[in-house]
Amino acid sequence: MAITPERVLSIQSHVVFGYVGGKAAVFPLQCLGYDVDVVNTVNFSNHSGYGRFGGHKATASELDTIFEIMENNELLRPTRLLTGYIPGAEALSVVEKLATKLRQSKPDLIYLLDPVLGDSGRLYVAPDVIPIYQRMLPLSTIITPNWFEVETLTKTELKDMASLRRALEILHKEYRVPHVVISSLPLKPWLASALPPSILSSQSEDTSHLLCISSSLPDASNSCTSIPIIHAQCVPLIPGYFSGVGDLFSALLLAHFHPDSKPETIHATPLSLAVSQALTKTHAILLLTHSQSQTLPEHEKLPTDDELDEADPLRKTRRMKGRELALIKGQNLIRGVGLPQVWEMIRWDCFWDC
Amino acid sequence: MAITPERVLSIQSHVVFGYVGGKAAVFPLQCLGYDVDVVNTVNFSNHSGYGRFGGHKATASELDTIFEIMENNELLRPTRLLTGYIPGAEALSVVEKLATKLRQSKPDLIYLLDPVLGDSGRLYVAPDVIPIYQRMLPLSTIITPNWFEVETLTKTELKDMASLRRALEILHKEYRVPHVVISSLPLKPWLASALPPSILSSQSEDTSHLLCISSSLPDASNSCTSIPIIHAQCVPLIPGYFSGVGDLFSALLLAHFHPDSKPETIHATPLSLAVSQALTKTHAILLLTHSQSQTLPEHEKLPTDDELDEADPLRKTRRMKGRELALIKGQNLIRGVGLPQVWEMIRWDCFWDC
Repeated sequence: MAITPERVLSIQSHVVFGYVGGKAAVFPLQCLGYDVDVVNTVNFSNHSGYGRFGGHKATASELDTIFEIMENNELLRPTRLLTGYIPGAEALSVVEKLATKLRQSKPDLIYLLDPVLGDSGRLYVAPDVIPIYQRMLPLSTIITPNWFEVETLTKTELKDMASLRRALEILHKEYRVPHVVISSLPLKPWLASALPPSILSSQSEDTSHLLCISSSLPDASNSCTSIPIIHAQCVPLIPGYFSGVGDLFSALLLAHFHPDSKPETIHATPLSLAVSQALTKTHAILLLTHSQSQTLPEHEKLPTDDELDEADPLRKTRRMKGRELALIKGQNLIRGVGLPQVWEMIRWDCFWDC
Repeated sequence: MAITPERVLSIQSHVVFGYVGGKAAVFPLQCLGYDVDVVNTVNFSNHSGYGRFGGHKATASELDTIFEIMENNELLRPTRLLTGYIPGAEALSVVEKLATKLRQSKPDLIYLLDPVLGDSGRLYVAPDVIPIYQRMLPLSTIITPNWFEVETLTKTELKDMASLRRALEILHKEYRVPHVVISSLPLKPWLASALPPSILSSQSEDTSHLLCISSSLPDASNSCTSIPIIHAQCVPLIPGYFSGVGDLFSALLLAHFHPDSKPETIHATPLSLAVSQALTKTHAILLLTHSQSQTLPEHEKLPTDDELDEADPLRKTRRMKGRELALIKGQNLIRGVGLPQVWEMIRWDCFWDC
């Protein structure tokens, strides 16, 4: 394993129990050789999916103090920046100020911005954070929005290939984001029918799939004329809801992204190689988590049922607990040892004109 | 590597930059296969040795809320408990209440209590935490006080073999602590002259050494009549001050302690085996940190000089930064790969009557 001297500043939520936010991101980054400076935007007991949760939210002023002291101590020198869930506009503004300063002082900073806004049509942050994220997009190197976050940030409903192309154009050209990765697009008919056979054929018939798509500007210094290179891959959907998957994926993507690497094949880009690694490892951890949850006693793997959950809140927490990511048990997978299958990103050449 | 299904609840400080408290303890525990529930008693920018530091201290009520929600969610089910720096009597009382509850509900809980009070004659907590720690001692499985903390907890000045024996007796019999480990005793003449040749001979003549001593009750259920088994080892002192060493040592000790293990030799105990592992790995990380700090540019490895530090505060922070534990670079050492030397704890049979 190559141990790099790189240092990631990670700014996201912390939970005591389980693996979301920083708990899903920091350990994988450390396993892959990164020193990680860990800023906890909240300190909560567990993730909100358990129904009951609580603790302390860092105030904007607390975050500002921490960054100021670190700067005065010459400790604010990351080579990479990772930001995730940040509660509220005030705290996010502090992070915006920090990211602006880091970008200015270190133009080659690799900043992975995960614009955590919501999912499946529902915002889970206050609406006033949206314009701040839009202002922050030009500071980023890579963003990892989900479907809903792409729609929200670009004000574009994704309903056909034209709107998907338009949304990516807005992100690359208007917001000057060099690299965009949408890791789990539902495979709606219009999307499935546009996919080249090389990507579609990797699906098996009998399971649902999600599409992971990446879009990379070959020349980030020239975002207006350069045409983004698209890659995609279908990955089988694992039944049930798992928390922290996006946080793990983003951390792995940042860890594996080496902008100066020279891919062995002309079909790949530094971004597509990193996405392949992140996708492969995230999927392997999910498979392990799923198989582990199947060995739990019956009362801990009850299926989702809102009515029964309402009657017995512990029914839900037991299900959640059984679906916490198996990061520790699966740490060798994160190190690249014993991966069952590689999910390679496949170039989608006709994306812009199909 | 054996992946155990065990879960540690770790309660200690958090710093964004560097490796002390939880940042020194959690990653090693995770590497060794433990799921870790991480409670941050403070969220600071960096450790206090940098001179400037700040952030948020968790209040007693915040900690209480977190534990209460976790209990209601059935998430308070650790097999092991690790407590370190906890600021103030109010917060410590909340942890005392929690440890009492966990001990009652799980009699075989393995609780490593590091009674963080101070060092070298100086308290760095408020004096009102001392009686709380004294009340907590009977809840523990293992404690890892330093020289000064032994003196403070037992109200016994360590000045000869008789007072050392007396202090250990107080901890084992009055406070009913099954296992005591003092990891770095200065080798004063009275201590050196009492050491059996088998322990003394492992020293080389030309460097200073520290003594690590462990004292283990063979039958913890009968603390009044059972005679503690003593082991010790001399380890060369590495020049310079490194922060977080005790936190790393305690975490490794907890990770390697398996009370039901059957040592291959009659000279060893489950405690002495765990101490050997913790000592060996901590020393290897320190050697790596030291050798890494020697490769720094001149202005980052300036020796301690209070007068020059006063004139230029950054002089001190640069030195501190160069001495942060090389935990990430040395993660294979933590996993037991490539250890340069094993520091085996040697049985000190005549301790009680020499």
